[in-house]
Amino acid sequence: MKQIQGGVCAPKGYKAAGIHCGIRKNRDRRDLALIVCEKDCEAAAVYTTNRVKAAPVYTNMQHLKNGRARAIICNSGNANACAPNGMQAAKQMCEITSRALGIATEDVFVCSTGVIGVELDVTPIKNAMPDLVSALSINGGADAAQAILTTDTIKKEIAVSFMLGDKEVRIGGIAKGSGMIHPNMGTMLCFITTDADITHEMLDAALRQNVNKTFNRISVDGDTSTNDTAVVFASGLAGNSKITERTADFDLFADALYVICEYLAKAIARDGEGATHLVSCTVSGAESEQVAEQLAKSVICSSLIKAAMFGADANWGRVICAMGYSGCDFAPEQVEISFRSCAGIITVCANGEGLPFDEEVAKNILTQDEVEILISLSAGDASVTAWGCDLTYDYVKINGDYRT
Amino acid sequence: MKQIQGGVCAPKGYKAAGIHCGIRKNRDRRDLALIVCEKDCEAAAVYTTNRVKAAPVYTNMQHLKNGRARAIICNSGNANACAPNGMQAAKQMCEITSRALGIATEDVFVCSTGVIGVELDVTPIKNAMPDLVSALSINGGADAAQAILTTDTIKKEIAVSFMLGDKEVRIGGIAKGSGMIHPNMGTMLCFITTDADITHEMLDAALRQNVNKTFNRISVDGDTSTNDTAVVFASGLAGNSKITERTADFDLFADALYVICEYLAKAIARDGEGATHLVSCTVSGAESEQVAEQLAKSVICSSLIKAAMFGADANWGRVICAMGYSGCDFAPEQVEISFRSCAGIITVCANGEGLPFDEEVAKNILTQDEVEILISLSAGDASVTAWGCDLTYDYVKINGDYRT
Repeated sequence: MKQIQGGVCAPKGYKAAGIHCGIRKNRDRRDLALIVCEKDCEAAAVYTTNRVKAAPVYTNMQHLKNGRARAIICNSGNANACAPNGMQAAKQMCEITSRALGIATEDVFVCSTGVIGVELDVTPIKNAMPDLVSALSINGGADAAQAILTTDTIKKEIAVSFMLGDKEVRIGGIAKGSGMIHPNMGTMLCFITTDADITHEMLDAALRQNVNKTFNRISVDGDTSTNDTAVVFASGLAGNSKITERTADFDLFADALYVICEYLAKAIARDGEGATHLVSCTVSGAESEQVAEQLAKSVICSSLIKAAMFGADANWGRVICAMGYSGCDFAPEQVEISFRSCAGIITVCANGEGLPFDEEVAKNILTQDEVEILISLSAGDASVTAWGCDLTYDYVKINGDYRT
Repeated sequence: MKQIQGGVCAPKGYKAAGIHCGIRKNRDRRDLALIVCEKDCEAAAVYTTNRVKAAPVYTNMQHLKNGRARAIICNSGNANACAPNGMQAAKQMCEITSRALGIATEDVFVCSTGVIGVELDVTPIKNAMPDLVSALSINGGADAAQAILTTDTIKKEIAVSFMLGDKEVRIGGIAKGSGMIHPNMGTMLCFITTDADITHEMLDAALRQNVNKTFNRISVDGDTSTNDTAVVFASGLAGNSKITERTADFDLFADALYVICEYLAKAIARDGEGATHLVSCTVSGAESEQVAEQLAKSVICSSLIKAAMFGADANWGRVICAMGYSGCDFAPEQVEISFRSCAGIITVCANGEGLPFDEEVAKNILTQDEVEILISLSAGDASVTAWGCDLTYDYVKINGDYRT
């Protein structure tokens, strides 16, 4: 498997575009993305578990019942959630797109992201549709990646290539997510394309298994959004022997999809609102993956630990405290905690008690961009990593005045 | 029922003191508190649910098995959690206190609060004990309230008086708590005294019922501490007819205890680390109290809402979003959301959709010290209030560098 350029347009059959249509006031911000395949795709998606779902989520659940889709239309600047006429706006976005592309309305997948509770006026989308379709290009992946961002500071895209038999298969993905990020389904928008030949049932299986291990293991602020969606399209144009069950080829495909999902999940955590550090927590030596995951997430989600990471403070007491209230049973007296980064590693707690350590060395380790919290339980073989970020003045600033 | 002066020393039989013993470096900070009753008390306590418990929690569980106690010794500046020789230090604190007071070691209740993971040297406590005992006074409640604080900015104490039959009964309480505050048991230290004559079983029942409705409904940062403890002593000196079962007198006592607990819980939320607003969320019209509580807590705990409250931003979309991921089933299309403070009330969402509203009016309401988020579900009669605070730059500052 190797990483390649092109994002969602790297696999065969896809074009994309991202332009400014006017939902955002700032003319320099792209706010409308379109991804289209030259043929019908097998498609699978997972959605937010929030009881309050944005209108497009319901539309997509309906449209994807047949496991088939062809285009993704997505605006930023307005979430089309809890707003008057939301279902109508989502439907209109699909109709406008279907007419412009000459495809069935049910084959359009629609997403919105931005502020909740403001009515979405589709007029700018309608007016911009001809320009958007003209802009479609196999080089348009980056523009689309840009157009779906909200408080994100960097675009998130990746593509990989690998062999299935004698055929080269590609998977590409883009994602957005910076705030309202919490491990409970997609927790963001993620659009993945592939040219693999695979049924939508197997596509769904591969997506779910990977979302659980990647997007569901990141947290920025513990808030699960109303709009979270991860969708994958498969054009089949790679010409591989079709994947219809859990064969070795399925595993190869799922492994490649994992790389896409992990990269995008980490990119979201790293770009968490106001974040200055990507913070990961790996719990190893757990009796089960479930325990390791619950502990790692509890650590990543703690406001106190996140603030300590911002301050480069090796405050491991908060780590063991967050483990303690995770709801997991474990032996505190067997816990070992270390901090690691490119600057080195330092063990600060063993057998559940503090070790003397050099504060300067710890500070140097914790001031690096990527910081790992390593926890060992000595209770088994299971190991899980969860990703998050620090809590900073800028998170408060960004969210203290988001709408104005 | 009326509010009176004196805190934990208001009820008959109690003396208290709070001095600087040297656990804290700052000589101006009191760091050791003692509360003593002139006779054995009935006693009941609830503790943190954190899997990782500080040493004193285990000691108290042991000492309170007989439902009897006489003194509370508490230091601040060191939590005596996850530290070498923790159980020994907790035991020594009890022994030093018992010797100085001439009471049984098992009748001493011991608490510690402060940084986790640092060995507690009891030498300063031992050396200061004669001074502490000399300082005991019926006017010492305020000093004790001061001595148990950590990042708190104000001391928290209250007392009330009410009649049981023809006898005046008093209840007084002090509490500390500012960070690591989350509704899951006491989530802080709270020491309550009363002169009511009541069995420890009934005392326990009254305490649990009230803790669930007060301390378990506040959150500062979602982190449940390793040390949380709420304890109540009853001296019986009021001379009321002894409360031994759930009679009308029990209800009167429990109602008075509720006033103490609610006041202290709100005081903790208001004094949340870095907080500039006391934020309450009342969910009414719920089908059950459990649903109302879960929704109110979800709103109070949301980092996004807390940051919006700091920014006085009427971002109700985040409120309905937090309701959505609470895990409760409810009808989003029936939700009404208003913001209220001493400056007025404004309804911003009805039938699950945004209403047009005057941003200036909303801003004025949200810039007051106490802000209420009012949610109506139109699904039943249950109503619950939870309390929290805003998320501010100072929270990040305080917790980015707590240890140094």
